Amino acid sequence: MKTTNVKAFGTNAADAPLNEMKIDRRDVTAKDIEIEILYCGVCHSDLHTARNDWGFTMYPAVPGHEIVGRVTKIGSEVTKLKVGDIAGVGCLVDSCQTCDSCKKDLEQYCLTGWTGTYGGADKHLGGPTLGGYSEKIVVDEHFVLKVPANLDLAAVAPLLCAGITTWSPLRHWNVTKGSKVAVVGLGGLGHMAIKLAKGLGAEVTLFSRTPDKEKDAFELGADAVVISTDENQMQSVSGKFDLIIDTVPYVHDVNPYVATLNISGTLVLVGYLGGLEPILNTVPMILGRKSVAGSLIGGIAETQEMLDFCGEHNIVSEIEIIKMQDINEAYERMIKSDVRYRFVIDMASLK
Amino acid sequence: MKTTNVKAFGTNAADAPLNEMKIDRRDVTAKDIEIEILYCGVCHSDLHTARNDWGFTMYPAVPGHEIVGRVTKIGSEVTKLKVGDIAGVGCLVDSCQTCDSCKKDLEQYCLTGWTGTYGGADKHLGGPTLGGYSEKIVVDEHFVLKVPANLDLAAVAPLLCAGITTWSPLRHWNVTKGSKVAVVGLGGLGHMAIKLAKGLGAEVTLFSRTPDKEKDAFELGADAVVISTDENQMQSVSGKFDLIIDTVPYVHDVNPYVATLNISGTLVLVGYLGGLEPILNTVPMILGRKSVAGSLIGGIAETQEMLDFCGEHNIVSEIEIIKMQDINEAYERMIKSDVRYRFVIDMASLK
Ligand SMILES: [Zn+2]
Ligand SMILES: [Zn+2]
Ligand SMILES: [Zn+2]
Ligand SMILES: [Zn+2]
Repeated sequence: MKTTNVKAFGTNAADAPLNEMKIDRRDVTAKDIEIEILYCGVCHSDLHTARNDWGFTMYPAVPGHEIVGRVTKIGSEVTKLKVGDIAGVGCLVDSCQTCDSCKKDLEQYCLTGWTGTYGGADKHLGGPTLGGYSEKIVVDEHFVLKVPANLDLAAVAPLLCAGITTWSPLRHWNVTKGSKVAVVGLGGLGHMAIKLAKGLGAEVTLFSRTPDKEKDAFELGADAVVISTDENQMQSVSGKFDLIIDTVPYVHDVNPYVATLNISGTLVLVGYLGGLEPILNTVPMILGRKSVAGSLIGGIAETQEMLDFCGEHNIVSEIEIIKMQDINEAYERMIKSDVRYRFVIDMASLK
Repeated sequence: MKTTNVKAFGTNAADAPLNEMKIDRRDVTAKDIEIEILYCGVCHSDLHTARNDWGFTMYPAVPGHEIVGRVTKIGSEVTKLKVGDIAGVGCLVDSCQTCDSCKKDLEQYCLTGWTGTYGGADKHLGGPTLGGYSEKIVVDEHFVLKVPANLDLAAVAPLLCAGITTWSPLRHWNVTKGSKVAVVGLGGLGHMAIKLAKGLGAEVTLFSRTPDKEKDAFELGADAVVISTDENQMQSVSGKFDLIIDTVPYVHDVNPYVATLNISGTLVLVGYLGGLEPILNTVPMILGRKSVAGSLIGGIAETQEMLDFCGEHNIVSEIEIIKMQDINEAYERMIKSDVRYRFVIDMASLK
């Protein structure tokens, strides 16, 4: 298969910093779109993958799945975009497209396993897929999104992961005008959850452990902030919420949040993969028909819907633009939650 | 308030057997229906209440909330039933009827607290409400059900608790023709879950720890039985079910069942009040948008819907009829799961 060698930033080992490297991109096949990457958001998964925190990283690892760029070449059968258009690529670049999930536009739950934008099994070139910390990427048009022209392109990038990860549960659990939504945690995911829930017309409350994020939360559109360590404040929202989007990425007690769900409400975990400790108490779940659920990113059609919605409602992420060469320092700052609320790499810095 | 003294079976202490006693029933108020009780099903809650297993029993305790009887008197404003009609009473005899839950016909989630048929706070006479192990009961017509004339009345009684407890989640989670439903545990609740899910057109699987209930399960209408202790069998239903109704009343590991949920599937607990141990793993929940939920009995309108459905589909409970005087022995047998699948008291034995 013909390939082109392009510049990228990645690593060959868990304990090595990210550095410039050269990688291959396939030439476009009939259904492919080649994209010159303009901006790439920096997701927590990027650093977990680079450092092999989950134990399954294949090297070389080139992270990045919040990609915005310009179409530079299209295959003979491509109809979705044309050369010069602005395109987005999120967490998925492939799936079987034939299973029950794929047929329902739920490629993120593909029953044969979807291919991640990085760290997946590259069906074309073999080895791991290589992500957006690179000059170019080539992706099947089905997995390429159209980006609304009116939005700031750098600030669109995080919509492709942080945005869709919170949008999908908001839509699946039917959040609409007047819904009462709470968001646990104010980071990359949490700040998008507030903006998107607010955009949908919900009344939005942020749960925060400390008062220091109150001002930001209100600026992002939250209607209320509840300090989760304050029992009186927690009591004041007992039984209130139709949906809670819990973005906290580490183990934490969800029972106090379940208590704030309304009858038939759902707490959906989008950030924490692991065991629920302290143990989940079924009593309030049974007495109030409450659910605890999980949700993973979103499908392609749903991602397009979200981007279109953001275009109409002028919603983008809050970002801090960095150079590609600053990525290792950015990771250190992310670990300390020292970012409001997403780093985005200006890929011009890689040239 | 004028009252009538009637015979009942109850206890005044956690460690005393049930014995005959006399209790007061109020005279009907304008909206009340007086019912001569013909049959009363025996629920696990009855024995837990009699023995104060949950620590909040008020004595005297007269259990029984699966009541079928004949209307003997009605208040001046009653329109639902007339003297001589067959009536049912389930787990609820009162609620505020004005809160958000009550307005949505979800009296079982009344935000000010519903009144249980026994062991609740009697709004008319004070003290605890007294249940169906008695000659008569007087209930606000809103909480009285109409019983389809074509069904065996003794076998209808368990529909009022075991039936509605499994019907409500089947309906809330939209089980319909072709839905794939699993039931965990084959007791009073489980056997009704199979019958009702089957009645709704679902493909029904029973999870059982041992093969000895296989024959019964098929006779009740199950399409398949999976032995939950057999890893190969569990693997064979991985990712299969849209809804799992978990009727197991004691602590147990739900993670193996979550693995058998389809994408966007829900496991709903209806039998176990307590902490989920071993701890619930969020990984499959997030990777498959799965939910773990709880559900409590059902509302009055939904109970009527279930009874009407059972009338149309000729569905009743599998029962063993006992005399009122055999109740203490019946409790011992229930503890050993020695009942297929519900004891029903023939209240003529109390005369
Ligand atoms: Zn991400
Ligand atoms: Zn698929
Ligand atoms: Zn019961
Ligand atoms: Zn109410």
